[in-house]
Amino acid sequence: MTTPAAQASAAPPAARAYRRLSVEQRRAQLLDAALHLFAHRTPEEVSFDDVAEAAGVSRPLVYRYFPGGKQQLYEAALRSAADELEQCFAEPRAGALTWRLGRALDRYLAFVDEHDTGFSALLKGGGVAATSRTGAIIDEVRRTAAEQVLVHLAGTGADPGVRLRATVRMWITAVESASLVWLDEGKTPSRDTLRDWLLDQFLAMVTATAAGDADAARVVRAALALETAEGPAGSLLRRLLPVVGGAGHLLG
Amino acid sequence: MTTPAAQASAAPPAARAYRRLSVEQRRAQLLDAALHLFAHRTPEEVSFDDVAEAAGVSRPLVYRYFPGGKQQLYEAALRSAADELEQCFAEPRAGALTWRLGRALDRYLAFVDEHDTGFSALLKGGGVAATSRTGAIIDEVRRTAAEQVLVHLAGTGADPGVRLRATVRMWITAVESASLVWLDEGKTPSRDTLRDWLLDQFLAMVTATAAGDADAARVVRAALALETAEGPAGSLLRRLLPVVGGAGHLLG
Repeated sequence: MTTPAAQASAAPPAARAYRRLSVEQRRAQLLDAALHLFAHRTPEEVSFDDVAEAAGVSRPLVYRYFPGGKQQLYEAALRSAADELEQCFAEPRAGALTWRLGRALDRYLAFVDEHDTGFSALLKGGGVAATSRTGAIIDEVRRTAAEQVLVHLAGTGADPGVRLRATVRMWITAVESASLVWLDEGKTPSRDTLRDWLLDQFLAMVTATAAGDADAARVVRAALALETAEGPAGSLLRRLLPVVGGAGHLLG
Repeated sequence: MTTPAAQASAAPPAARAYRRLSVEQRRAQLLDAALHLFAHRTPEEVSFDDVAEAAGVSRPLVYRYFPGGKQQLYEAALRSAADELEQCFAEPRAGALTWRLGRALDRYLAFVDEHDTGFSALLKGGGVAATSRTGAIIDEVRRTAAEQVLVHLAGTGADPGVRLRATVRMWITAVESASLVWLDEGKTPSRDTLRDWLLDQFLAMVTATAAGDADAARVVRAALALETAEGPAGSLLRRLLPVVGGAGHLLG
């Protein structure tokens, strides 16, 4: 939208932008440009000049905001990406568990899709940009995601127990691992298929843990009671029957 | 054991050791001392002097073998630990799958137990010793372990399919994640309990994948046919019944 004030200005767009942004707005604009670049290239492939060019500003201006150089910019972009990721698992506590988790996974996988190269480079680790600070940010995202999933699984009242907590953390790392494989495979199968498979895995993992842990069994039985025949849990149960149907000998 | 030659020598023990080891033996001895130190402390807490002292040699001698300093020594120790870890999943291809995997897990968890602090520091990452080379070694161990598990699951002939491959990789990361939680929890529950739980998780994950993938279903059905009622698969199936027994509404 062109405002009357902008029409009246004779300055070129970039120069106008210099004047019109507050410090916070400018910082957000630079971070946004950096995050976009870091999303689609490895950290090594992004230079300070690239960020200045993408934001339409001078290199010294970027340095004024990020005097620590590319590493500081990378960590700030990662911080903002982490905030976005942590929001993925925030979902109203209503309805069946798999419905809520499915929506969270949809947001998570959309993020992975959008930030593909950067996500891959970050989690495969070992690049020059990987430091104890970037490692701490990644761990924080995992921890936050696990806590949010536990709230959906068990509510905030009852303690789900150490084993079920560990299972959710294992599922979070399995989701990461599956996301990396999905990116390596050129984003096949579809995001919806990947989501449904990760929901199957979630149900299988927490139910297997419930098979050996009384605290987990209480929580999982309550969660399954809210699932429906038409939903993911009903679908998985029906699809499991032909796989284990031939294994009657295991019941002894 | 004191040999006649050693009895005849008037040199002090350390000096005798200097003369008697070949280059390869000396390198192995230094690596062994380094691996022991790195196993029980973070890389930051191990100095070059510590390694020299533990090996009973002078600091310049350690430098002669590892001119790249502590980082070179750390990477060489990690390399030797990785070789040991990769052997954990090498198991004769005979008997039920869960029997073979159980033995592999016993070896893996014994390694984790033995190298607790170093294992934790390495996989939590982000320390100064983490480089693209250490990251590549970790990835190689994961890949090798996944390939060996796939051989046990599907043999070397039939292709298990991309989905089952990804499931095994997810389980490997779940095993790592569970190992880190186990160390954080002061090595509780027992290693045997942890192993049985990880076997439950393996069976649950591959069976859930088989529920949505024809290639995986073929492989998993064949594997389940070799399991017994007395083994882990029979035990899991019986323990699952009370958890899902109340969920008859899911069958529609």
